[in-house]
Amino acid sequence: MFDVTRYAIAAQSIIDAGQFLYGQGWSPATSSNYSARIDDEHIAVTVSGRHKGKLVAGDVMVVDLAGNPIQSDARSSAETRLHTVLYQAFPDVGAVLHTHSVKATVLSRLLPAGEPLTLQGYELQKAFSGVDTHESQLTVPVFDNTQDIPALADQTRDWFRQHPDQPGYLIRGHGLYTWGRTMSDCLRHVEAFEFLFECELETMRVRR
Amino acid sequence: MFDVTRYAIAAQSIIDAGQFLYGQGWSPATSSNYSARIDDEHIAVTVSGRHKGKLVAGDVMVVDLAGNPIQSDARSSAETRLHTVLYQAFPDVGAVLHTHSVKATVLSRLLPAGEPLTLQGYELQKAFSGVDTHESQLTVPVFDNTQDIPALADQTRDWFRQHPDQPGYLIRGHGLYTWGRTMSDCLRHVEAFEFLFECELETMRVRR
Amino acid sequence: MFDVTRYAIAAQSIIDAGQFLYGQGWSPATSSNYSARIDDEHIAVTVSGRHKGKLVAGDVMVVDLAGNPIQSDARSSAETRLHTVLYQAFPDVGAVLHTHSVKATVLSRLLPAGEPLTLQGYELQKAFSGVDTHESQLTVPVFDNTQDIPALADQTRDWFRQHPDQPGYLIRGHGLYTWGRTMSDCLRHVEAFEFLFECELETMRVRR
Amino acid sequence: MFDVTRYAIAAQSIIDAGQFLYGQGWSPATSSNYSARIDDEHIAVTVSGRHKGKLVAGDVMVVDLAGNPIQSDARSSAETRLHTVLYQAFPDVGAVLHTHSVKATVLSRLLPAGEPLTLQGYELQKAFSGVDTHESQLTVPVFDNTQDIPALADQTRDWFRQHPDQPGYLIRGHGLYTWGRTMSDCLRHVEAFEFLFECELETMRVRR
Repeated sequence: MFDVTRYAIAAQSIIDAGQFLYGQGWSPATSSNYSARIDDEHIAVTVSGRHKGKLVAGDVMVVDLAGNPIQSDARSSAETRLHTVLYQAFPDVGAVLHTHSVKATVLSRLLPAGEPLTLQGYELQKAFSGVDTHESQLTVPVFDNTQDIPALADQTRDWFRQHPDQPGYLIRGHGLYTWGRTMSDCLRHVEAFEFLFECELETMRVRR
Repeated sequence: MFDVTRYAIAAQSIIDAGQFLYGQGWSPATSSNYSARIDDEHIAVTVSGRHKGKLVAGDVMVVDLAGNPIQSDARSSAETRLHTVLYQAFPDVGAVLHTHSVKATVLSRLLPAGEPLTLQGYELQKAFSGVDTHESQLTVPVFDNTQDIPALADQTRDWFRQHPDQPGYLIRGHGLYTWGRTMSDCLRHVEAFEFLFECELETMRVRR
Repeated sequence: MFDVTRYAIAAQSIIDAGQFLYGQGWSPATSSNYSARIDDEHIAVTVSGRHKGKLVAGDVMVVDLAGNPIQSDARSSAETRLHTVLYQAFPDVGAVLHTHSVKATVLSRLLPAGEPLTLQGYELQKAFSGVDTHESQLTVPVFDNTQDIPALADQTRDWFRQHPDQPGYLIRGHGLYTWGRTMSDCLRHVEAFEFLFECELETMRVRR
Repeated sequence: MFDVTRYAIAAQSIIDAGQFLYGQGWSPATSSNYSARIDDEHIAVTVSGRHKGKLVAGDVMVVDLAGNPIQSDARSSAETRLHTVLYQAFPDVGAVLHTHSVKATVLSRLLPAGEPLTLQGYELQKAFSGVDTHESQLTVPVFDNTQDIPALADQTRDWFRQHPDQPGYLIRGHGLYTWGRTMSDCLRHVEAFEFLFECELETMRVRR
């Protein structure tokens, strides 16, 4: 059993995040999915196929960390497993956001297979929790897209367990996953990633 | 005779669509035209030459599927025939949107004559009704622009009858036509197409 | 003597235009200047150096067609003469807008000296008054920038008298001048020009 | 002791600036920092790590020109010293804004080491206080980024003392510093710089 007030707060943070992220153009149409932790065993997560700029209370449901719907007949996002592996692996993760911007999509398709996106020398890297200098290096892996979500979830888990200091990953032609202790941290990570993706693409346009 | 309440609801969905599409920059100035089905024989469609970001009730009129004005002295969009052939061919089409974005315009001019735009490997292809994997392929033909609308209408009809699973087409230097069962489906298609057009152009900038 | 109500209406149309044009990013900071005809001998025009996104009643003054302030101690835009030559030459011009977008600035600097911008094959050319097919050709001359406004005014007059069917011109590194019978026509021309400038630049990025 | 009303007015101008600059996309996430002069010995400045689009009264504190917090337990921006050297050197500086846009970031990384950004022939150069022709030349130095703020502060001071007529500088991969007599002047400078940065990048995309 989960605490209803905690659910309501988590759901509201997801609805607010949707309005912001859709407004920025980072979650077009019915793309993207978002979640927030309720307690050790439950998360609030978006219902499958909903428009992220128009989320209402009924568009956020509860699942346990195995992905089972709790007190609900709704179907959660097809990618729910990509969220729950993060909550299972990292007890201090409080929110996970998957966005789907043009920049993330294009950049992830332009990078050669097997090659991560490497970011360095940007002052904005300090926006990620735990980073305090632009001299650090951020490594963002790009996983190949697939409709086999359990397999992809395993791949991502293998990676983030080995790189617990890295704040996000890309799926090719599909978008960004990032997480944080709170929804506010997580939203800051999305903002920072989108800024850096745009910088990288803008540079490629001129340098190439 | 058409049901007035159905007309009013269709007209409002068109006015709301105009505010959204103009706000996104996809229907500049007096470009674009929109329609929504009232019944088997009537559609609501924008009056010719109106500013799509400022549509009011008087800017949406009724025509029959032959394009004749019904209970109105107004003149419907010059491209009304491109709408009615869709409603005639597909009984389940409930809305047709023609938008006119920079991306659609530029992309349609850059593609070589006779060559369609081919989209594959994008997760967002799943935003189109009936598509459930990024491994599908979307083929968007580009028709040459002309002021001879009846001839163009015939060309598009020949094409979409042969490709009933494809959700839209481009007119060179002119923009996008897409349709759907409901206005909401149709707007989702516009969002998805615009996202994909931007991805393609962004990629061409870097790859070329 | 001018009619005060006509002045008030002209001034309001200028204030509203400023909010729109600044909001679109086409009149940054204190750039740009706008005018609207009051009668055969007077126009309302923006006071020099005002922020176009924050225009208030006191930021619009009256001048006669020689550019003299009427019933005012304020100083009108340094480029007032570029407006008045248009009102003098074309009795049916009711509004003149000078905007200053990134696209107009960059495009005007990229074009070789003496070469106009030529636009053809765009459906949106029909947004200009009097144009009814995309098969027409739009020729937009680029004048070299100068702080000698009377000399520039003469140059522009020579040109638009010879090309009364053309709706606007560029000044290199400086922006667009366009005009129309009403403020609404004139704003539609700005929208259409900005759309076409963006299309041209977007194409140059890919084609080059 | 500082005048509390002067502080309140300075703080409000900073909060309003934050909303504008964040809204334009020039101060993403927790990047950027802003200040405004209270009197000869005190400035109001943003508290470290706050989100610039959501500044509230408690996010602006007072420091003296040596950077010491006054009547506050909060910690001011890590870059406070880059602000105070400007107030010390120029008694007529009333506001300093540090923004962090994609354009400034990318441009500052693309310029070869030791080479300033040179801007000329743009009418918008007249938006900078004291410039009255596009025939002037603007020289914007690019300092290498460092977490050693006192050393960077000395470098910038050496430069702006030698070039008191220049309105701003860049830090590589980090953003823009600009200043003005009033917050309004300073905001106009940011707008003009961002416009010019975008023009330069847009030109590099096509010309390269």
